[in-house]
Amino acid sequence: MSDMMQAVIASGAGGPDVLDVIQTERPTPGNGQILIRVHAAGVNRPDVMQREGNYPPPPGASDIFGLELAGTVEALGAGASRFAKGDRVMALVPSGAYAEWAVVHETNALPVPDGVSMIEAGAIPETYFTVWSNVFQRAGLTAGETILIHGGTSGIGTTTILLAKALGCRVLVTCGSDDKCAAALKNGADVAINYKTADFVAEAKKATDGNGPEVILDMVGGDYMQRNIEAVAIDGRIAQIAFQKPPKAELNMLQLLTKRLTWTGSTLRARPVEMKAALARALEENVLPLLAKGAAHPVIDSTYPLANVREAHARMDSGQHVGKIVLTMMDDGA
Amino acid sequence: MSDMMQAVIASGAGGPDVLDVIQTERPTPGNGQILIRVHAAGVNRPDVMQREGNYPPPPGASDIFGLELAGTVEALGAGASRFAKGDRVMALVPSGAYAEWAVVHETNALPVPDGVSMIEAGAIPETYFTVWSNVFQRAGLTAGETILIHGGTSGIGTTTILLAKALGCRVLVTCGSDDKCAAALKNGADVAINYKTADFVAEAKKATDGNGPEVILDMVGGDYMQRNIEAVAIDGRIAQIAFQKPPKAELNMLQLLTKRLTWTGSTLRARPVEMKAALARALEENVLPLLAKGAAHPVIDSTYPLANVREAHARMDSGQHVGKIVLTMMDDGA
Repeated sequence: MSDMMQAVIASGAGGPDVLDVIQTERPTPGNGQILIRVHAAGVNRPDVMQREGNYPPPPGASDIFGLELAGTVEALGAGASRFAKGDRVMALVPSGAYAEWAVVHETNALPVPDGVSMIEAGAIPETYFTVWSNVFQRAGLTAGETILIHGGTSGIGTTTILLAKALGCRVLVTCGSDDKCAAALKNGADVAINYKTADFVAEAKKATDGNGPEVILDMVGGDYMQRNIEAVAIDGRIAQIAFQKPPKAELNMLQLLTKRLTWTGSTLRARPVEMKAALARALEENVLPLLAKGAAHPVIDSTYPLANVREAHARMDSGQHVGKIVLTMMDDGA
Repeated sequence: MSDMMQAVIASGAGGPDVLDVIQTERPTPGNGQILIRVHAAGVNRPDVMQREGNYPPPPGASDIFGLELAGTVEALGAGASRFAKGDRVMALVPSGAYAEWAVVHETNALPVPDGVSMIEAGAIPETYFTVWSNVFQRAGLTAGETILIHGGTSGIGTTTILLAKALGCRVLVTCGSDDKCAAALKNGADVAINYKTADFVAEAKKATDGNGPEVILDMVGGDYMQRNIEAVAIDGRIAQIAFQKPPKAELNMLQLLTKRLTWTGSTLRARPVEMKAALARALEENVLPLLAKGAAHPVIDSTYPLANVREAHARMDSGQHVGKIVLTMMDDGA
């Protein structure tokens, strides 16, 4: 084995063409870290934002792209004891997943359940951590409740549909085309609303006997913020995980009081390693058992060898994908 | 005993002069209700809003003023079994407290702990239920954390200072004068900020090593909404309980994500009786033991006989009060 590896960085800010596969030094595991031979890494919206120069890695993180990966443990750093060499793991990383080798704190890695492929596993951490944290923990979605998901065919959207349905919830989604609505329904959504041809506030109320959904998962912002407040049920919770439109708007917050609402937001990447570790434990308890029995496996849109990372990003830019786009690092297809 | 009683209603919308003491029929307890001979009833800001025509009683509630009371149980409705005749109770009511007799569902009443006077007890339910629900349940304030309270000498403000200090929190308050700042400090606040002469965002950060308070309790709204978002700590929670300024403003919600904030709001009066019952149980568990050992008794600004209800409201309108204004219905001063 050489001490060098292939990894993806950006030569500037812009389209997929700024991404380059370079040769760089293989990382070495520090205290409590494990060294992983990466088999697959998911492509996520924040990666696109980073490529465009709008989402730099947090201080101390490398400039290698990628927030999630799956692979096999190849070495343990000092004090690392949770996994053994050869274990299949998936992990959330602040950067560094688009690479043949990566290191991660062992508490931010999870075992890959039997029956879950490496490609699936590489597509799990970022969206499953995000959805568990925001939808189930912060917004408190519980069995029997209804959730409205904006962007029903995105990685986050498909993951939320799968987990919410597996846990006994009703799912409404918005999508930007009839084809995407059909894909979301096929993936398990109960109601799909084409936001280009219908008003999601009216449709969401119609689908819930006029009450509105108990939880809304939003990554849009802009005018959606007021419309979410209108649409959500009494005692409702709105989970904000991104702003594809501006985060600034004239808002009337009266219904925050009169409907007893909770509006909560968060990003995953900036969290300290201890918070991610706590979240990993919650996933082990609540989500790994589902995956192990064959439920809620991620929807894979497409896979690309690491060398074709520009194509993978072009696919995400196209907005045509349904589910996750995954990079693979092993000739055997992981 | 006559079947009639004195009670306060409004002859129109306006100043204290619209309030009239009338003779009306004594209520009779329905299923699960208790009949209370009222000794004392607190005056609250929502009463003033109701007097001004801006906060009508919820559907089905009487037009007699008053949201909280203390008194003795005089009769039990069918199925009521929680209290016995003669028990000292305090209760949250959707209306009807400014009266010599009142009925309430037994689950919305609490026993008055030994050592708590009837005047104190009549000043407890509205603010203690509101503060427990919003500050400790919805915003999750816990020991060791810091809270910023807007309006440190209001009934809500004084109650929050008392409970937060009794439960091991650090307390910052804003007040509109140096005298009120002094009163809040005397009442237990650690830091008091005169919002007319200082910027509360800068002062709150300065008082918390630049981090900001973990929780903010706001009843102001308007420009305070953005300033609260600026001031609050990472992982912070903002509890909105009223809008003395407009609920509408141009807001930039980016920090909801980047600081992982939660913004929650609620009013008490509109909640179903079951929600109030659950809250009453939480108070029995967490707050009555404090009161019983002499801690966190409400600050009483002044008392007025029921006949002088206009004076009591004029006192609240003046904004000069510190703590609670209480009406008394018994010659013996309760």
